[in-house]
Amino acid sequence: MENLVLELGYALDTFYFLMCTVLVMWMAAGFAMLESGLVRSKNTVEILNKNALLYSIACIVYLAVGYNIMYPATPLNGVIPGLDFLLGSDNTTAAVLAGGEDAPYYSTMADFIFQAVFAAATMSIVSGAVAERMKLWPFLLFAVVMVAVIYPVEGYWKWGGGFLDQLGFQDFAGSVVVHMAGAAAALAAVIMVGPRNGKYGPKGEIRPIPGANLPMAMLGMFILWMGWFGFNGGSELKIANVEEANAVAKIFVNTNAAAAAGMVVAALFARALFKKTDLTMTINGALAGLVAITAEPLAPSAGLATLIGAVGGVVVVLSVLHWTSCGWMTRWGRFPCMAAPVSGGFLP
Amino acid sequence: MENLVLELGYALDTFYFLMCTVLVMWMAAGFAMLESGLVRSKNTVEILNKNALLYSIACIVYLAVGYNIMYPATPLNGVIPGLDFLLGSDNTTAAVLAGGEDAPYYSTMADFIFQAVFAAATMSIVSGAVAERMKLWPFLLFAVVMVAVIYPVEGYWKWGGGFLDQLGFQDFAGSVVVHMAGAAAALAAVIMVGPRNGKYGPKGEIRPIPGANLPMAMLGMFILWMGWFGFNGGSELKIANVEEANAVAKIFVNTNAAAAAGMVVAALFARALFKKTDLTMTINGALAGLVAITAEPLAPSAGLATLIGAVGGVVVVLSVLHWTSCGWMTRWGRFPCMAAPVSGGFLP
Amino acid sequence: MENLVLELGYALDTFYFLMCTVLVMWMAAGFAMLESGLVRSKNTVEILNKNALLYSIACIVYLAVGYNIMYPATPLNGVIPGLDFLLGSDNTTAAVLAGGEDAPYYSTMADFIFQAVFAAATMSIVSGAVAERMKLWPFLLFAVVMVAVIYPVEGYWKWGGGFLDQLGFQDFAGSVVVHMAGAAAALAAVIMVGPRNGKYGPKGEIRPIPGANLPMAMLGMFILWMGWFGFNGGSELKIANVEEANAVAKIFVNTNAAAAAGMVVAALFARALFKKTDLTMTINGALAGLVAITAEPLAPSAGLATLIGAVGGVVVVLSVLHWTSCGWMTRWGRFPCMAAPVSGGFLP
Repeated sequence: MENLVLELGYALDTFYFLMCTVLVMWMAAGFAMLESGLVRSKNTVEILNKNALLYSIACIVYLAVGYNIMYPATPLNGVIPGLDFLLGSDNTTAAVLAGGEDAPYYSTMADFIFQAVFAAATMSIVSGAVAERMKLWPFLLFAVVMVAVIYPVEGYWKWGGGFLDQLGFQDFAGSVVVHMAGAAAALAAVIMVGPRNGKYGPKGEIRPIPGANLPMAMLGMFILWMGWFGFNGGSELKIANVEEANAVAKIFVNTNAAAAAGMVVAALFARALFKKTDLTMTINGALAGLVAITAEPLAPSAGLATLIGAVGGVVVVLSVLHWTSCGWMTRWGRFPCMAAPVSGGFLP
Repeated sequence: MENLVLELGYALDTFYFLMCTVLVMWMAAGFAMLESGLVRSKNTVEILNKNALLYSIACIVYLAVGYNIMYPATPLNGVIPGLDFLLGSDNTTAAVLAGGEDAPYYSTMADFIFQAVFAAATMSIVSGAVAERMKLWPFLLFAVVMVAVIYPVEGYWKWGGGFLDQLGFQDFAGSVVVHMAGAAAALAAVIMVGPRNGKYGPKGEIRPIPGANLPMAMLGMFILWMGWFGFNGGSELKIANVEEANAVAKIFVNTNAAAAAGMVVAALFARALFKKTDLTMTINGALAGLVAITAEPLAPSAGLATLIGAVGGVVVVLSVLHWTSCGWMTRWGRFPCMAAPVSGGFLP
Repeated sequence: MENLVLELGYALDTFYFLMCTVLVMWMAAGFAMLESGLVRSKNTVEILNKNALLYSIACIVYLAVGYNIMYPATPLNGVIPGLDFLLGSDNTTAAVLAGGEDAPYYSTMADFIFQAVFAAATMSIVSGAVAERMKLWPFLLFAVVMVAVIYPVEGYWKWGGGFLDQLGFQDFAGSVVVHMAGAAAALAAVIMVGPRNGKYGPKGEIRPIPGANLPMAMLGMFILWMGWFGFNGGSELKIANVEEANAVAKIFVNTNAAAAAGMVVAALFARALFKKTDLTMTINGALAGLVAITAEPLAPSAGLATLIGAVGGVVVVLSVLHWTSCGWMTRWGRFPCMAAPVSGGFLP
């Protein structure tokens, strides 16, 4: 009977991980719809190709190389790290039934695929920032390098038990490991490749490039919001007791509250500044709220989470000010909009 | 060991609630796609803005005010009702392990967010009916009033243990609490604001306003159908024993059967009447079947659920007859189409 | 206490089934978006109608007739097979608590709806192949026959315990029972109805018919990929112990790896052959990888699953060669493209 209970707990935690994986995988569609909806229609097909292929490449490369660089401490019994996954091993029933602190409480395969879709999400963030600036195959080549080396190495620093983790650095669900890493790679890329063709006139004046398919962009936002429940909720890593179940539920409440507050505040603030309700600000406000809460979606109360999201909403509007205020922008003409890396949501 | 089992049950019920929450949250995207797909393209962006913002506003207002008006009996230990949520409290492990009838069997936070997405869904129903008739910010102001006061008060009457509940009133998943409440608010609104500009010619003749983006509208229907599994299935509130698991499974079967029957019957009936297959009738038929079964998705057999959905399909076609039959319509010229409130599906 | 544990296992397996059902139901939207995105815009509305109605018809017919032909061994206590579902019976708690090999471990209702959405998926595959070739209502009439008789009979051969199953035939999640059955019906249909109007010029030369809405087609691919986790993952039928949880997790890893490999290989191969990156090949590559792994998503290691998906990606590109290589195509002019039946992904 005791064994049955231990097995049930293992099964529930594994199932929870897999459902969260489905939600995070679904974010790939969200990034694709958001990005393809916000570019000019002539670039739609290339953007779709890029988002689909980067997801696939990230999954393959993370399977072959990345996971084992990022989590070397995972008890793998293969000689070559990562070979276990290619060979398909997992925890034995005996190890689970041993119980105690060190017994595994979810499938390693489930952990792997949850981490793999995180790697893909990181790459999607880069994608949004270089939209309409970079050719397809060079970008995909960079995706290989990013997911094989850059992301696993910095991911190891925190989540794999590396030096950031030992210094007590906090990053619950990836505000830094995923979002800032993606943003940093994106920032480097946009500094190298410069602004989008047609973004600036001959005198440095700014030309707005409106999105060609706003319903798709909005759909992308909803998909990302939905997927974020899995992204943050799954990062708790366990649900099968009262304390953990409460934690996951609180993460859901806080994630939703921050996104809602980010959206409403960004919409109101943008309306106050620009005298009109701007749909891209509504979208980016929600995403900013989500990114903001991702650093710690468990600790704050629901009220505080609402405030954190609201701050995200303010920041995302401020971050595009320098391109609406033309004079200031001209001085920093080739600098990217800081909002760009934020979840790929914005295209300066 | 016994404690472990109680904790597992709590965790499973909480997880089930959270997955249903994700599905109902996703319905916000469904409403947005459905409504924006069925309006004229000039109004698409405003409709998208409205649907996104109403969801966020509903979540914030329900967190701050609504939940505690609707469920005053929830054992909250705060002085000001609702403060607990803003502070983020939940059930203790000790309370769960006490067992017995009164022990909580799922996270209060999970319950809260499940209820919050219901509040947002109610507001979405109003939204569909006033599409192209009402300006954005007045509507959003009304959303604040609706979710802060109107919905929680009438929700309390039934689900919070109020007088309707004590009279033995049945409403399993919200045919009245959600759908009719939304519909009533919508009816009031459309009587006040009148028909859409361009709906009627100078002599009162009717001008059909076809949807500008039918693939999006169809996608919206599929999203709503998918989300409805969470809406009805989650309303059982518990899954962690044989009887409850059977109940949730039966609700899934009945919900699906009613939607399917509503769609097929509406499509056939509309085809018989109008001599052509009308996509909006296919879409609205499914939604009518879903609304029809939502009053009691558990009690009927699958065969009876099919019939209930079929009745919904007939009613939704009949309800638009008065605008296809022009003479009759002229007499009631400024009356709204009764189908309008039905899940925001129809725009007269 | 022991009873509580048995009940919890039953509830977890049932819940897992229901979540997989939601994912497979969602594939109906994926097929609708994929197919409507890949046809000419003049046919969009009819394709949407067809995909929505076929799902509903399949669910109703499978409830009334199909399930009981396919699974006659299911312990039903009704006189007329299938009547039980229409009457809504399910396993008793006593039967579950009896324990042992023969005790049911999930709700029969959950099993039914999981099987029903499989039947609908089979019909969707046929739909993709006859897109733009067949009128709406004759197709829907065929859907009745397919789901009432053809699919249940061949499904019985394997999954209901029929002769294929007794011969040791392997089909884990429906590569043959669903995909090849759908493909065979589709092949028969396209041989009968011939190519699409406008596909060939007067001299037999081929005219490419590009998809009118590629973002929708890409969204459809993502939806199908997401749904496939439920399709393959749910086909394990059980998750509530260590071994089964590991199995479901491995199926998730393998399904994802095969889809990713199929996409990347098809995109690279098509690029090498045609000197350009073709979005429809990216989409079809992923679907081919998914179909390829569906025959056995559990047995292979993740590395082998990647290879299996890659083979699918090669095959799907080769299968359209005969219409890009015009001379060869002319000889087989009225033969359908073999890729057509593959998940409805391709339209020759």
